Amino acid sequence: MNVKAEIFDSTLRDGAQGEGISFSADDKVKILQKLDAFGISFVEAGNPGSNPKDIEFFQKAAKLKLKNAKIVAFGSTRRKNVKAEEDENLAALAGAGTDYVAVFGKSWLLHVNIILGVTPEENLAMISDTISFLRARGKKVFFDAEHYFDGFKDNPEYALKVLQTAEKAGACALVLCDTNGGCFPDEIAEITAKSKAAVKAKIGIHCHNDNGCAVAGTLAAVKAGASHVQGTFIGIGERCGNTNLSTVIPDLQLKLGYECVPKNSMQSLTETARYIAEVANIKLAGSMPYVGRSAFGHKGGMHADGVAKDPATFEHIPPETVGNERSFLLSEVSGRSTILSKLENFDKSLDKNSPETLRIMERLKKLESKGYQFEAAGASFELMVLKELGRFKPFFTIEHFHVISTQNYAIEGREKANAMVKVKVGDKYEITADEGDGPVNAIDRALRKALEVFYPKLKKMHLEDYKVRVIAAGDSTAARTRVLIESTDGKDVWTTVGASKDIIDASLMALLDSIEYFLYHKG
Amino acid sequence: MNVKAEIFDSTLRDGAQGEGISFSADDKVKILQKLDAFGISFVEAGNPGSNPKDIEFFQKAAKLKLKNAKIVAFGSTRRKNVKAEEDENLAALAGAGTDYVAVFGKSWLLHVNIILGVTPEENLAMISDTISFLRARGKKVFFDAEHYFDGFKDNPEYALKVLQTAEKAGACALVLCDTNGGCFPDEIAEITAKSKAAVKAKIGIHCHNDNGCAVAGTLAAVKAGASHVQGTFIGIGERCGNTNLSTVIPDLQLKLGYECVPKNSMQSLTETARYIAEVANIKLAGSMPYVGRSAFGHKGGMHADGVAKDPATFEHIPPETVGNERSFLLSEVSGRSTILSKLENFDKSLDKNSPETLRIMERLKKLESKGYQFEAAGASFELMVLKELGRFKPFFTIEHFHVISTQNYAIEGREKANAMVKVKVGDKYEITADEGDGPVNAIDRALRKALEVFYPKLKKMHLEDYKVRVIAAGDSTAARTRVLIESTDGKDVWTTVGASKDIIDASLMALLDSIEYFLYHKG
Repeated sequence: MNVKAEIFDSTLRDGAQGEGISFSADDKVKILQKLDAFGISFVEAGNPGSNPKDIEFFQKAAKLKLKNAKIVAFGSTRRKNVKAEEDENLAALAGAGTDYVAVFGKSWLLHVNIILGVTPEENLAMISDTISFLRARGKKVFFDAEHYFDGFKDNPEYALKVLQTAEKAGACALVLCDTNGGCFPDEIAEITAKSKAAVKAKIGIHCHNDNGCAVAGTLAAVKAGASHVQGTFIGIGERCGNTNLSTVIPDLQLKLGYECVPKNSMQSLTETARYIAEVANIKLAGSMPYVGRSAFGHKGGMHADGVAKDPATFEHIPPETVGNERSFLLSEVSGRSTILSKLENFDKSLDKNSPETLRIMERLKKLESKGYQFEAAGASFELMVLKELGRFKPFFTIEHFHVISTQNYAIEGREKANAMVKVKVGDKYEITADEGDGPVNAIDRALRKALEVFYPKLKKMHLEDYKVRVIAAGDSTAARTRVLIESTDGKDVWTTVGASKDIIDASLMALLDSIEYFLYHKG
Repeated sequence: MNVKAEIFDSTLRDGAQGEGISFSADDKVKILQKLDAFGISFVEAGNPGSNPKDIEFFQKAAKLKLKNAKIVAFGSTRRKNVKAEEDENLAALAGAGTDYVAVFGKSWLLHVNIILGVTPEENLAMISDTISFLRARGKKVFFDAEHYFDGFKDNPEYALKVLQTAEKAGACALVLCDTNGGCFPDEIAEITAKSKAAVKAKIGIHCHNDNGCAVAGTLAAVKAGASHVQGTFIGIGERCGNTNLSTVIPDLQLKLGYECVPKNSMQSLTETARYIAEVANIKLAGSMPYVGRSAFGHKGGMHADGVAKDPATFEHIPPETVGNERSFLLSEVSGRSTILSKLENFDKSLDKNSPETLRIMERLKKLESKGYQFEAAGASFELMVLKELGRFKPFFTIEHFHVISTQNYAIEGREKANAMVKVKVGDKYEITADEGDGPVNAIDRALRKALEVFYPKLKKMHLEDYKVRVIAAGDSTAARTRVLIESTDGKDVWTTVGASKDIIDASLMALLDSIEYFLYHKG
């Protein structure tokens, strides 16, 4: 127990190879700081020789005060038939201002022959020269043996010789890479054990998920003696992605007794994963182990009932240990018990046969058929229930609104969208207008402008996130649209939903719920 | 080699427990037929006792002619202290009109005690009675031993007794379930081997992905002797999902030498996965092994170069064996070589220093900074290149457009959005208007109406899919929007992109590209 497994995150380097991922230097700084705060030991941050954005980043990063993470610059071995001293990429690597450097080299003869076009001996010399060059400049060097497992299967003697060459030249860790992501955990375990026996240096593991086994392959390598684990925090990376560290870290630390990160970091696992997804501007899969929004979501009526009796019956770990939450999802399959357990928050006297319960079920069904989904929109669900229970008194009504989007391509410059809205509060009316970037923004601004006359507190709330989902894709531009809006007053966060064939209408529904929710609770 | 591993798909039952999944009876028929065509042996289709939608489905399904798949009805063991003959759920199961039935029962004493609240003996009787009842009615019965691995770890004797009881009562397969998804492949291998040794019946495996190891756990069980594999085709399911069959099937059949489905089915793996995602109305993860859009997407310049020399250097299998495609992604990291390889399709004389190449790179950078992404929008990329090369002659220009969305809540009923547009073709003008469900639909209709006066062929093309992505979420309703439009003329399919702060503007850009692309190629 408590064997150490050091974590090396490559979100900023290998992760940036994922489809749709593009980090600015600023994004990289944000992610680096978050990984540092979480307690990651090494953050591989890019290739200082490859593009100007990375050079800018390394300059910024050198000024940061980090608690846990060491920044690692990444590059390849020297070019063929060139002295290390004359290779400009190695010069960039040495000059990146980091104490640690990761260098990848070939360990599969197919690559040595076809990709590099050099002799097996020249490849070894390239590895040895590169590491020696960097060691002489005071760097600690991780050696990534690219395609190591494929190389070992093809020619174990040569693969081992590659590792021994890197070790002799002074590498501090020898990282076995399944670059093509096609090796299975049992192969990885066997080859890792044999490789560990042939060298003294620390062994690392770097997997890709092309056969769906990156996490299991990584665990197998650790059990076989690897003590340095590479991956990307939320699994992003080229093709099918890299080992997902937000899965491997709790697997190792919470379930298998290894020590990867400070013990009390584990509670910020979910938040860290979601933050990185936010900065990377991708949607974190709801089903992602440990950190996904649905990772502890119970939908089956029986599962929901079971967890209510004892969480261990249907959960492999308590969600709070990784900073996630249990949730009970609404749907016709979950049956009334899930909905009832939610309704109990409003009125303890409701049971499954109460007329109110039946009415709410009916309403829910109707809204779902229109494209509403309340799973992620608790505030809208609450308002719907309050309204059906007759416990919600409207704060305002909308008399009418008009949105005018207009563009005149004959005239230089684009005009904005304009919205006019008339609201009624009590027996008073207010009509006003505003403009915005697009029709939704215009109606949002006009509506608030009108309502703030009556409810100045509305200035305290603002929208945090706005998501659009096209449902029933087959209908093209006339398809139904579901809009989710996340709002905050700086303290609480609530999510509301709207659905309609018209995106403006769907947005307005979600917007109205958001404002009503705020007024109901804080008005 | 060629050991059989029979595939049992539970997309329609366990998959329906996934967050956001809701199948109509019609959806279920579509998915069943697709799984049958692919060559899946068993399709678990729902619980006939649980809701009316499933009863409707079983009635429809009984009339279908299927080539490969047997339909399986799913239910639990009889209720406690009730005779099997008096249990209405068992009656529904027996009456579902299927030859095969899957029944789940408890094998973990924690569940027997807490969830069922019965003695260990009564639990065994519930299992035995249920299977005997169904056998007496001519059913073949799969027994799902729920929480088997947790149960075995807690009390191996009792877990084995559960299996032996089910076997004795006549179950045709004993399916070991890791219901909570927390067991690791090595545990699964060990327990599967011990269990197989204790019974004669076929052993099945059913994993969940809560620790990120469902695929590897399933493979480990198969290697330890399981010959019946449960999962859902694209991995959907409660919490973190079930074993992803679109990963496990090619792992087993293409890489490990097992026989799961007809050999020539494998080429439709990708299409089948995408079809099911479409019907389930979810976005298939781009990174999903084998079937994801990015599964064979190469972004790193070196990887793209390598694959060009020999695909085996950076691909674990050839993408065409699973009906997927290799792609080279555009980005600043991929370097000019990827873009050059795309430009070669237009003009073989272009090299990386041509002024045209530099101009295109410049333009690409500018558009990307506005929120455009061309990775998935090949048609827009092509148009952009043709325009920069001076090889695109505009078919029309838009003089101006106006969209008016208006809603009058004081009057019953909602009004539609209206759009007016004026276009110029040669020296002729056409101004017209139309209405639609929402502003985007209205402008789409008005624009086509105006252009069809000049280009009647436009009637042949239509939009297939319309996707909206909000970028830079922090800005709420004023955030940038990226719109992807997929169009078809029944033969070809092309995708175009638009990005703007205004969703109408972004939609219009993608729409214009789509029309221009059609006119350029077929005009």
